Amino acid sequence: MIETDILIIGAGPAGLFTVFEAGLLKMRCHIIDALPQMGGQLSELYPKKPIFDIPGFPSVLAGELIDNLYEQIKQFEPGFTFNETAVHLLKLEENLFEVITDKGTKHRAKAVIIAGGLGSFEPKKPPIDNIAFYEDRGVNYFIKRPEDYTGKHVVIAGGGDSALDWTIHLAEIASSLTLIHRRNEFRGALDSVEKVKKLKHAGKINLITPAEVIGVKGEHSLQEIVVEKEGAIQTIETDHFIPLFGLVPKLGPLSDWGLELEKNAIKVDNSKDFQTNISGVYAVGDINTYPYKMKLILCGFHEAAIACQSIYQRLNPNKKFVLKYTTVSGIEGFDGTKKQAEKQVVATID
Amino acid sequence: MIETDILIIGAGPAGLFTVFEAGLLKMRCHIIDALPQMGGQLSELYPKKPIFDIPGFPSVLAGELIDNLYEQIKQFEPGFTFNETAVHLLKLEENLFEVITDKGTKHRAKAVIIAGGLGSFEPKKPPIDNIAFYEDRGVNYFIKRPEDYTGKHVVIAGGGDSALDWTIHLAEIASSLTLIHRRNEFRGALDSVEKVKKLKHAGKINLITPAEVIGVKGEHSLQEIVVEKEGAIQTIETDHFIPLFGLVPKLGPLSDWGLELEKNAIKVDNSKDFQTNISGVYAVGDINTYPYKMKLILCGFHEAAIACQSIYQRLNPNKKFVLKYTTVSGIEGFDGTKKQAEKQVVATID
Repeated sequence: MIETDILIIGAGPAGLFTVFEAGLLKMRCHIIDALPQMGGQLSELYPKKPIFDIPGFPSVLAGELIDNLYEQIKQFEPGFTFNETAVHLLKLEENLFEVITDKGTKHRAKAVIIAGGLGSFEPKKPPIDNIAFYEDRGVNYFIKRPEDYTGKHVVIAGGGDSALDWTIHLAEIASSLTLIHRRNEFRGALDSVEKVKKLKHAGKINLITPAEVIGVKGEHSLQEIVVEKEGAIQTIETDHFIPLFGLVPKLGPLSDWGLELEKNAIKVDNSKDFQTNISGVYAVGDINTYPYKMKLILCGFHEAAIACQSIYQRLNPNKKFVLKYTTVSGIEGFDGTKKQAEKQVVATID
Repeated sequence: MIETDILIIGAGPAGLFTVFEAGLLKMRCHIIDALPQMGGQLSELYPKKPIFDIPGFPSVLAGELIDNLYEQIKQFEPGFTFNETAVHLLKLEENLFEVITDKGTKHRAKAVIIAGGLGSFEPKKPPIDNIAFYEDRGVNYFIKRPEDYTGKHVVIAGGGDSALDWTIHLAEIASSLTLIHRRNEFRGALDSVEKVKKLKHAGKINLITPAEVIGVKGEHSLQEIVVEKEGAIQTIETDHFIPLFGLVPKLGPLSDWGLELEKNAIKVDNSKDFQTNISGVYAVGDINTYPYKMKLILCGFHEAAIACQSIYQRLNPNKKFVLKYTTVSGIEGFDGTKKQAEKQVVATID
């Protein structure tokens, strides 16, 4: 059982920044995310792409923004449950919630902030009847720990940046690497395409195009895949098959939590505090909706700040909420660190 | 007559970022500010202090944030009217406003966004009866163009960072510089105190403490000041007297514009678009108020984005508002520049 003050669902930019605003108010946070790392779509979909509309950054790479946000929040010691999807939300009593993940991990918190972005990212799967049996038995849709592929025979399928980038990365450590794509053309960064070309010419990878994986075989775990190339069928022995066909965001289990939904998003009260119809449960960032909503990262930051203020007032009904200016008061981390502006001195000049 | 799409009152961080969000929607902006430079209190009061709560910046100096924001907006070519206070607001017709400054400059725009921070900063003035006569005739409360003091006799009064910093700066170019403070103790950055001490020991400035300027004299402009030090009176010839006793924010003339006010701030409709009770006039940043309002820079950014969306819809009632993602579409500046993510290539690998 993980216990905290605020349970955040989603480790994207809005979820991460929530930790900061909560921390200023001395509230601890724990974050659940279905992906293997923080950052949400910024890390998973476009870590190397520049964002131009984060205030104060004429340009920042998505991955860099996430690194900066973690640097900003780490003194508030957030906890993380990665690789797990929040499946059940129970309101045990006023100001006490339990969230259980698909792996059964239980989390308890005084308030819940859903910062789930576009929902949980689910991989597009190849249309192979028995593929579910081999999932996590050789078939992987995410690469959680690259080192697991050391010395293995690996087949990657796909024609976009993910397929290219992981081919480049895993070619170095896998025993063999085969890249299969249903078209001859790949779509990705020029640099990645060039690197894959070099690997092919150096004989370090096998490239099969235009081709599709149409079958998976093996007794207890994956042993072979069946590939069709222009009408011809071949079988390839492999330890791993990694289809990288992209991700589809789905609201997923939280659509059954009794939250009021509109256009695949959670309705919140923007005239107050971004609370949902379940009191004590808030939604911030791209997952919420209200009049004039803009799905911008900068809006998620604002919503997170207001939601934390509201939670503070819920949990401390008799305390006056006092806004703290970091430039004036500095920041005290839960880890004992303190950041503050250089102190002024009072001195005579003689 | 200055004409633009959106007239912004206040060149602090919220006002500056408004230019960016408006620019994405192809709307041009012009900013009026009573101070001689952009940045509002960040430039005027604490340019060298770190801020810890701007999302994505574990720490950023206030002055650096303003520089970054200008870098971010400059391709949208904002106009500026500095050193002037917006005094009159006239609604000429629906979607046509005129704003006139204290110097008589007229501005016309289709919408107005008030981003006035804590109001306009007015200097605390020394209690000398006839000082108003000498204002801008030798007595200055702001240093607008430091070069104006080259070769002049200058007296600065005050004991804080501004007095110390300008003493250091002007000592280099003034013919003589006298620093007067009513206490023996100065309050400021250690570094500044040390530098002033050195200037004094090197004979480059005169320091008179504890003392007060109690009179100003001169026929058409300032010629002398009268100083009282521990009961003794002396007269000092000078070209300039610069009292730097701090600034007091005042709502100022805009409190007469018919805007609904609450606790010295402008009430806005946060359930929609941060519009005031005057349709077409918005207020964003520290100057507005609504339930759960937090006077944080990051909130001003959000409010600015929503206000720009609302203005776009007002001015283009028949167009569908489409949110533009800079990572996907890039940015086209009004100056012809274009920023965008590296293009993906479509290529065969053979």
